[in-house]
Amino acid sequence: MASDARIPAPIPPPQPKISKFKIALCQLLVTPDKERNIAHARKLIEDAARKGAKLVVLPEIWNCPLSLKNLSKYAEDIDAEAACPSISMLSEVAFRNGITLVGGSIPELSAGQLFNTCCVFGPDGKLKAKHRKLHLFDFEVPGEVAFRESDFLTAGEEPTIVDTDVGRIGIGICHDIRFPELAMLYGSRGRSLTQNREAYTQIYINEDETEVWMMHWRVVRWTSTNWLQQKHQVKGAHLICYPGAFNMSTGELLWELMQRARAADNQLFVATCAPAPDPNTSADYITWGHSGLVGPFGEIIATAGHEETTVIAEVDYSLIQFHRENLPLEVQRQGDMYKMVDVLGGNAQ
Amino acid sequence: MASDARIPAPIPPPQPKISKFKIALCQLLVTPDKERNIAHARKLIEDAARKGAKLVVLPEIWNCPLSLKNLSKYAEDIDAEAACPSISMLSEVAFRNGITLVGGSIPELSAGQLFNTCCVFGPDGKLKAKHRKLHLFDFEVPGEVAFRESDFLTAGEEPTIVDTDVGRIGIGICHDIRFPELAMLYGSRGRSLTQNREAYTQIYINEDETEVWMMHWRVVRWTSTNWLQQKHQVKGAHLICYPGAFNMSTGELLWELMQRARAADNQLFVATCAPAPDPNTSADYITWGHSGLVGPFGEIIATAGHEETTVIAEVDYSLIQFHRENLPLEVQRQGDMYKMVDVLGGNAQ
Repeated sequence: MASDARIPAPIPPPQPKISKFKIALCQLLVTPDKERNIAHARKLIEDAARKGAKLVVLPEIWNCPLSLKNLSKYAEDIDAEAACPSISMLSEVAFRNGITLVGGSIPELSAGQLFNTCCVFGPDGKLKAKHRKLHLFDFEVPGEVAFRESDFLTAGEEPTIVDTDVGRIGIGICHDIRFPELAMLYGSRGRSLTQNREAYTQIYINEDETEVWMMHWRVVRWTSTNWLQQKHQVKGAHLICYPGAFNMSTGELLWELMQRARAADNQLFVATCAPAPDPNTSADYITWGHSGLVGPFGEIIATAGHEETTVIAEVDYSLIQFHRENLPLEVQRQGDMYKMVDVLGGNAQ
Repeated sequence: MASDARIPAPIPPPQPKISKFKIALCQLLVTPDKERNIAHARKLIEDAARKGAKLVVLPEIWNCPLSLKNLSKYAEDIDAEAACPSISMLSEVAFRNGITLVGGSIPELSAGQLFNTCCVFGPDGKLKAKHRKLHLFDFEVPGEVAFRESDFLTAGEEPTIVDTDVGRIGIGICHDIRFPELAMLYGSRGRSLTQNREAYTQIYINEDETEVWMMHWRVVRWTSTNWLQQKHQVKGAHLICYPGAFNMSTGELLWELMQRARAADNQLFVATCAPAPDPNTSADYITWGHSGLVGPFGEIIATAGHEETTVIAEVDYSLIQFHRENLPLEVQRQGDMYKMVDVLGGNAQ
């Protein structure tokens, strides 16, 4: 009954290289000066590394103000050979300081499309993963307020889970946190297998419209050179990192709630990092701040307020096992009533 | 992309008969005297109705103390002709006061099995739905504490959603709230169609174990005499009621969090009702109380403390539409990445 509630079946997280380490959440103040923002972020990352952080997280859109119509001016083409000052800095500072870096997000320009993109670097300075924001924030109270990211940005197309020196990490950006499905998927995701899918659905309605038939036919094929060896080793996320920038109203009501719910429901760690609001700004979008770390029982381990600050806190992955052994939610799920399907399968990068 | 993230596809809630009404949550004190508990509950329900409540909710296990080994002594065989004093009282008091009653839960003895069961009555006194707790609470810290409901109780086998005069209501009992899937399913559940399913899955592993194939074949058939007429009328839940009895440690950390997360994630109302802790008890299980009502933005509308009290608050279903129009989470879901499957389909009772 248990594993049945997830397709593919979930498996517990792997043994990370280190299971207890310091995380730093750089809640930095962002200005319209990109060069200054990059230098400032570098300094805060270096400070955090000096204080012993093995994993550093930056905010959503840290190299420029969160003004949708101006994002493209600050964008970088991450995959191209062209200069990417923000991305180059992240790579270099990760390497120089021997840390894992979840590099918040920056506007990415790729083939004429603009994405909100998070890059993850290892201590070797190599780009380990690139996550494009999956759920764009389109919010509107007619006649009062409107904020439509989809008018400016393109959504990413796949969830991102990445194996690092500090555990298996799932990535979400801001509004991605509003969707429990993504966190559930990261919590159980794991097979490092190549997957191919074919799916067919046909719907029939009979002549007098009294009956509806749906036929769904699906073939999923996973391929691996050593599947049976891997299946006990590759496993779900220890930690989900959400760079984010909730605003003052959704922030107060929902930001902490979402972090705690995702952590408690999936019995894993959640770390968030938001920009500090600029007191001198005239921007229409004021961020809530409140970067934080939440443990697998939904407990707040550390949190910032509104101001610029770096939160440094300890992550102890043994708590995941502790809580899952005491209360095995995964085993208690009722797969004969509901199933969460991870459509793209669970390929960690 | 939108509706795709739920199978069957979700549809917004129907127009309830009344969309604004008073709800009462009777956080009552329970003693070992069953007769007294029934009389006491009746009095509190009548008081609430007199104050204008159209929907009254009772706590989990309100006719006896929450002591697993003693539950069977207080159990009633709800489906039998035999005397069911707790259930008879609920039916009568609902009818006499013209209210909808989510009757918390009592131990139900059926064919030699013990269930934790919630009965819902309409203003005509008729039993509209019966929900058996789906997720039993088995918790253990080895050598310290153990609480294993599954040693005493049998789990229910299907989710319960019911159309009442005060909207479409999904039911969960206590630990059921820990599973986001159930609330997601209620939020999108709705087709009043008879469903028949057939599903086949085959898995193949080739000889050298380098490839795994899964073939999944499914036929779902819905039947209705007026499907095309109904499809725009029968829809997801407005409200999920969770009678519950979290303990002092899980209560403080998780009870409010779970209510708010289920409400905000699904943009609907959540009401909970817990027993008040008995100050004179020597029981090993002290309940947290804190019955509450949460709105579709995750906002706490009303909440109790520890003491015996009846929370009376206003439910306004127009808020559901308001929040869903401003921020259409359902449309923003990414069905090409994840799908929540409602395995048993969405038959409202």
